[in-house]
Amino acid sequence: MAPNLEPLFSERAKLLKGSDVRELLKYSQDPTVISFGGGLPSPDAFPIEDLKIVFEELLNEDDTLSLQYGPTPGDPLLKQALATMMKSRGIAANPERVIVTHGAQQALELFGRVFLDPGDIAMVTQPTYLGIFTAISVYQPLYHGVPTDEEGILTDVLEENLRALAMDRIRPKFLYVVPTFHNPTGVTMSLRRRRALVDLAAQYEIPVIEDDPYYDVRFEGEPVPPIASLDKEGWVIYLGSFSKVLAPGFRVGFAHGPSDLIAKMALAKQGVDLFTNGFGQRVAERYLSLGLLKKHLPKIRRLYRRKRDVMLETLDQTWPDNTEWTRPQGGLFLWTTIDPSIDTKELLPRAASRGVIYVAGHGFYAGKPEVNHMRLNFSFPSDANIRKGIGILGDVLREEKGALPLLAPLAK
Amino acid sequence: MAPNLEPLFSERAKLLKGSDVRELLKYSQDPTVISFGGGLPSPDAFPIEDLKIVFEELLNEDDTLSLQYGPTPGDPLLKQALATMMKSRGIAANPERVIVTHGAQQALELFGRVFLDPGDIAMVTQPTYLGIFTAISVYQPLYHGVPTDEEGILTDVLEENLRALAMDRIRPKFLYVVPTFHNPTGVTMSLRRRRALVDLAAQYEIPVIEDDPYYDVRFEGEPVPPIASLDKEGWVIYLGSFSKVLAPGFRVGFAHGPSDLIAKMALAKQGVDLFTNGFGQRVAERYLSLGLLKKHLPKIRRLYRRKRDVMLETLDQTWPDNTEWTRPQGGLFLWTTIDPSIDTKELLPRAASRGVIYVAGHGFYAGKPEVNHMRLNFSFPSDANIRKGIGILGDVLREEKGALPLLAPLAK
Repeated sequence: MAPNLEPLFSERAKLLKGSDVRELLKYSQDPTVISFGGGLPSPDAFPIEDLKIVFEELLNEDDTLSLQYGPTPGDPLLKQALATMMKSRGIAANPERVIVTHGAQQALELFGRVFLDPGDIAMVTQPTYLGIFTAISVYQPLYHGVPTDEEGILTDVLEENLRALAMDRIRPKFLYVVPTFHNPTGVTMSLRRRRALVDLAAQYEIPVIEDDPYYDVRFEGEPVPPIASLDKEGWVIYLGSFSKVLAPGFRVGFAHGPSDLIAKMALAKQGVDLFTNGFGQRVAERYLSLGLLKKHLPKIRRLYRRKRDVMLETLDQTWPDNTEWTRPQGGLFLWTTIDPSIDTKELLPRAASRGVIYVAGHGFYAGKPEVNHMRLNFSFPSDANIRKGIGILGDVLREEKGALPLLAPLAK
Repeated sequence: MAPNLEPLFSERAKLLKGSDVRELLKYSQDPTVISFGGGLPSPDAFPIEDLKIVFEELLNEDDTLSLQYGPTPGDPLLKQALATMMKSRGIAANPERVIVTHGAQQALELFGRVFLDPGDIAMVTQPTYLGIFTAISVYQPLYHGVPTDEEGILTDVLEENLRALAMDRIRPKFLYVVPTFHNPTGVTMSLRRRRALVDLAAQYEIPVIEDDPYYDVRFEGEPVPPIASLDKEGWVIYLGSFSKVLAPGFRVGFAHGPSDLIAKMALAKQGVDLFTNGFGQRVAERYLSLGLLKKHLPKIRRLYRRKRDVMLETLDQTWPDNTEWTRPQGGLFLWTTIDPSIDTKELLPRAASRGVIYVAGHGFYAGKPEVNHMRLNFSFPSDANIRKGIGILGDVLREEKGALPLLAPLAK
């Protein structure tokens, strides 16, 4: 009853590797574990009453198009609504240059598919969202990591790198960035860096993939314009998602970019899954067009701001002195830097045995990782669990430090 | 505003080709065109009242898991319900060996991904469902076509082929079949051929992908057991879908197979889109578990049986003598064979100009196609449009024949 399929698997299948975050997901459905792991929205953030309104409308539509097969690039009404939304963010958007995907994750996979031959260069920030690796690594790019600081990507280093690559006649296929409330760090790229980035993209003719799922999840401070809104020459591809502002369960994301790219992506998607689930697409469309998103956002922002504040306050109170963390103005995550002698991946089983999980920073790096980071999600756990879980992690860190022989002064 | 991305596209992207069916989809949303093209369910077949019950239940669930991120292999409750459904079809199913996909189309893509290196052999029937080509051609297999007749795949030819390949030490990666109400022909594989196929799969150790989206859409005759139900050694991978018995708009399909294959597919899917939309999955689960599918099926069967009868009757009345067609006992399509001097792809613009479209048979063949077939869908058009459209096609065929110089006696 169990044939041996091993000899039949492709070389590609042997490269497949799970993401650290996905592997942790099993814990987040265990109510006894406090999870700072996945980027899950709070269940309290789901707009249940709004969905009742939307569902009733959809089931009473005459055409029931939300239930039928639909065009591969997406529901025309949703593409229109997305263009309107992007215009409100300053982007010169056109519904004909939109493709709707099964989450922005699928758009990442499609970029790998249409851009990458083995050995091509894919540029990413260090650290970067780890889903880019699971999406495109099967296409065997070489990753080129560009360092970041509290203003986001270091554009002067990027420029040096692009110049050096150009001297070797190497043109990277794209640069992938999450400029606003970065995953994993929570950092927002400054306006001057965004301007510099757009200029470099145009000068070196490099597509920039701007992944912007958290744009609307800002608790404080003024919005910073999307890179795509500064782009005059069309090198910026803009990605968005409904997973953080409506619900992940509908799996609706989108990409906006040059027509020939969107057409290639649509051809690729045709073979992959025909089209994005039409029901979820129409739910997203109604959610935008009826003004429900706008109405619901203040609730999400209040809720996540409070959770972030609880996390920051508890970190201040309970974590040892030689630890640091970011203070994001929005999004779902903050990023901690601990004693460089402690490896957060090795620490994870100990934390898990105490009932708390997080994502070790390792998976967010191309090449050799920095080992002393944790990504902490504050949107999913309850206030009480944030307090309790952060306290436990503080204890674990102190015990770990005490347990380690100090062989040499700590290096920075 | 329009950068030239052409030099950046991958070799793979250059192989991308749209499917004839998808390209026709634009017509099916034009109410002035009579479409026998896509495999669209009738809008009258959507269980709107059942969906109202299901949606209300889902929005009142305490856990709202249908809205949250979920595990990559699928919603555990749905996997359980699918196993129960497969068991009712005689299959030794196990929920742990199920993966839920964005339509069965996505499962096909995942098979390509985990099985195929360039030059590997993928066996298909001649003709076959054309979505297998759009799903896996990017992985550059060599297609090996096996002929079919009114009992399905010719298992004696298959055996000869497998023996010859084995002599050359070539092991095909899989054989893909649609045994029940075959797309495009409507033919159902006989029980004796199914038994022979299972034996050959075990003897030559070849995975068989049994794509069975129409199992429940039988209007008459006794069900023929799925190939998977005859399988004692685990070589048969079974695919199903909710697109024909609930609605395509939820994009919920599934595969059941050996554990190590399902695990590889889940790893691959993780990078592609994280998980299948949880809302659609839970809708499908409720639809099964509340007994709504069972209650709704007689309506679908009555409706499609009538439409098929209207099509058969009109074909009998209006088509020229030298034409033939299949008389399927279920499913969504029948297959016509016309005068071999007429190329149905060349004829299509003329039919479209008269307001009627169909799918030319060409796209359903690996390698050189037979050019004198049309696939006709009877589930989507209204009864009146079936009568009118089939009549117009009959006229077009007669005119075409009259317009052609007869150079030689017609070959069979």
